[in-house]
Amino acid sequence: MESQSILIKNAIIIGPEIKKGSLLVENDKITNINDNIDSNDADEVIDAEGKVLIPGLINTHTHLSMTLMRGLADDLPLDAWLNEYIWPVEANLDGEHCYAGALLACVEMIKSGTTCFNDMYFFMDHVARAVDEAGLRGMLSHGMIDLGDEEKRKKEFKETIRIIKKCHNTAEGRVKVAFGPHAPYTCSTELLEGVRKEADKYGVKIHIHVGETRSEVDQILEGQGSRPFEYLEEIGLLGEDVIAAHAVWLSDDEMDIIKEREVKLSHNPASNMKLASGVSPVSKLLSKEICVSLGTDGAASNNNLDLLEEMKTAALLQKVNTMDPTVLSAEKVFKMATINGAAALGLKDELGSVEVGKKADLVLVNMKAAHLTPMRHPISHLVYSANGGDVDTVICNGNILMQEKELMVLDEKEVMLQAEESSKNLLSRD
Amino acid sequence: MESQSILIKNAIIIGPEIKKGSLLVENDKITNINDNIDSNDADEVIDAEGKVLIPGLINTHTHLSMTLMRGLADDLPLDAWLNEYIWPVEANLDGEHCYAGALLACVEMIKSGTTCFNDMYFFMDHVARAVDEAGLRGMLSHGMIDLGDEEKRKKEFKETIRIIKKCHNTAEGRVKVAFGPHAPYTCSTELLEGVRKEADKYGVKIHIHVGETRSEVDQILEGQGSRPFEYLEEIGLLGEDVIAAHAVWLSDDEMDIIKEREVKLSHNPASNMKLASGVSPVSKLLSKEICVSLGTDGAASNNNLDLLEEMKTAALLQKVNTMDPTVLSAEKVFKMATINGAAALGLKDELGSVEVGKKADLVLVNMKAAHLTPMRHPISHLVYSANGGDVDTVICNGNILMQEKELMVLDEKEVMLQAEESSKNLLSRD
Repeated sequence: MESQSILIKNAIIIGPEIKKGSLLVENDKITNINDNIDSNDADEVIDAEGKVLIPGLINTHTHLSMTLMRGLADDLPLDAWLNEYIWPVEANLDGEHCYAGALLACVEMIKSGTTCFNDMYFFMDHVARAVDEAGLRGMLSHGMIDLGDEEKRKKEFKETIRIIKKCHNTAEGRVKVAFGPHAPYTCSTELLEGVRKEADKYGVKIHIHVGETRSEVDQILEGQGSRPFEYLEEIGLLGEDVIAAHAVWLSDDEMDIIKEREVKLSHNPASNMKLASGVSPVSKLLSKEICVSLGTDGAASNNNLDLLEEMKTAALLQKVNTMDPTVLSAEKVFKMATINGAAALGLKDELGSVEVGKKADLVLVNMKAAHLTPMRHPISHLVYSANGGDVDTVICNGNILMQEKELMVLDEKEVMLQAEESSKNLLSRD
Repeated sequence: MESQSILIKNAIIIGPEIKKGSLLVENDKITNINDNIDSNDADEVIDAEGKVLIPGLINTHTHLSMTLMRGLADDLPLDAWLNEYIWPVEANLDGEHCYAGALLACVEMIKSGTTCFNDMYFFMDHVARAVDEAGLRGMLSHGMIDLGDEEKRKKEFKETIRIIKKCHNTAEGRVKVAFGPHAPYTCSTELLEGVRKEADKYGVKIHIHVGETRSEVDQILEGQGSRPFEYLEEIGLLGEDVIAAHAVWLSDDEMDIIKEREVKLSHNPASNMKLASGVSPVSKLLSKEICVSLGTDGAASNNNLDLLEEMKTAALLQKVNTMDPTVLSAEKVFKMATINGAAALGLKDELGSVEVGKKADLVLVNMKAAHLTPMRHPISHLVYSANGGDVDTVICNGNILMQEKELMVLDEKEVMLQAEESSKNLLSRD
């Protein structure tokens, strides 16, 4: 994990243009991209013949530790899913569960080519520990819920500020912390106003669920007299530092607000389909030049963290929903999972594309497979034909996390065993 | 490939019930399923600890040789996709192209757990050769199109009958032949009436595209004065031996006809989404006890043949389209890809479930992976979390085609190379 320089040769590089060549990583950065770079000086040389080099994928909405609840409750209405399965289990969570689940998620993300993510959950210092050990990059937020209770509200701020002080900009800068007010229907106006104030004070981002279901919109309309994004605008929460997940149910006025305030959206198609939440108007949002990135949501509602799969789901869903096969092309959805994700996290200058000067968060995908033959348009194959299992090598912050499908960090079997046991422990509680 | 008996031990067997145990294959059949079978006599013993044993998946609508056109044309309207890309290329096809493409498809299907399929395309004796060599099971039909031209019609019958005589029930019974009238809008009434007569005479099935797009429905309504399934009923084509692919645009009356005539449907969600054809009312069809199976369609409109991925797509699409997360459960969609596929092909007594007396078409899926941890409900994991890359071992007709991800038949690299070259050759023609 301590390579000082890595030379990747003979790769099909998906940069601003697509061409075969070499790329040099020095420390944590990409320092050279060229047709052919001399290999004498590199500590590590990777021959990427037959492989495509892409930016590490960026998952802008996750609940990592929910991998422990993968497959726990499928094919259920949202309220039964939450009330009868997820919330009762979550009531018993502790830091060790969250650590074990997050570590499992990190292994899964590395194996499927994700190097950066935006996570909201609980016991986030334990999640930070897992992310640090895995060598990944993540923005972490404690999920704040007060349901109008002032005592609960105070605790949520205390916990978030504790996590900011303990974890923000740790792990060589790979771990950042954000405020995570859960949603307009689970947080009081006081909480949301406090979040805006404190986020400004600490200079951190805000990660929130907005407009996921129609019933959420009805509830906010009834309680606040306006739709979720209108309400958040009225109370001053919105800004270019807000990452709003889902954004399924949007009026034209809300789209205007999102555009005006430069709010970043995270589209989660598999989760929205599985829970029958609805279809976000992604192609319309992109045509308005709103920044829409891609997220998997938690493994309890997907049920995996595979962004290659999610790209295909996003493209296909948008086409059939608009009855227009030309919308959300492979190139557009690939941007959602890379540069738009970087922009959402405020890291567009550092992440999301293969360019000199950017952080070395890089993924090699093996194209020598029957389902990726014949080789024609690499981005088409990545979006429409590949899946996470085709990922070969993963580099994050200049460190090799996986090489030729072998994990260089963490003990994969041990992580799976721990997660299996942690899940059993969690579900045996009542 | 010549094992006489295979003992699979310690598998989680997805049979009529789910339990851990052993399974014995003798010649081409499953002869014993038990908690623990003594291993002394088996020629081959497979320890399936950590693996799930499922029936070989059945893909009821494919165009195998179109793997050569994978990724050739994406994100296009259906008419431009067909007129500007697919049909001009298809005009240059020869038997060697179809062989090379079919062989590539066979490798892809084996690697992703499909053992049986229903294919319509051209030069089907060359496709039969590929299927025989791959050790798979397939029903093959020459795609008949006359567009009202009597000479063309005669040729299409001649070709189909040639293929029936040459290939039907060959390859130890693994290859069967069917009639393949392309669709109501590309075939004349005379052709369709002739197909019914000849299919009865030869005792073979009928494979046809019906109701794929709204414009097809409009065209048939205008030309015939009734909707596609109504028209096919009027001319006497429909019966329990008809496999109709797509069936996206259906009136209630058409559903009644399908039910009454016991027509078998093949649902192709990824293709229908990618080409923006629409959403088949699968959960409604299943509630009427109509047999709906699962297909990937060709690789030019999907762009892979991964039925594990297709199961997830089917379930998710149906949930969001009906706005009901309880429809098309994991169990139901798993049946579509297995026993319903067997029923569609008239092979329900032989295929589609893990039961004593059935053909040994079996797949082991490795569950020891981060994205399939923790292990909880195996069918949930297969549908919602797994993909084709998780398939470990594949047996068809009692022969091991892949073991621990290594192909036992065909030279994978050579097949990919041939397909790559064949594709280049095809596209260089004009």
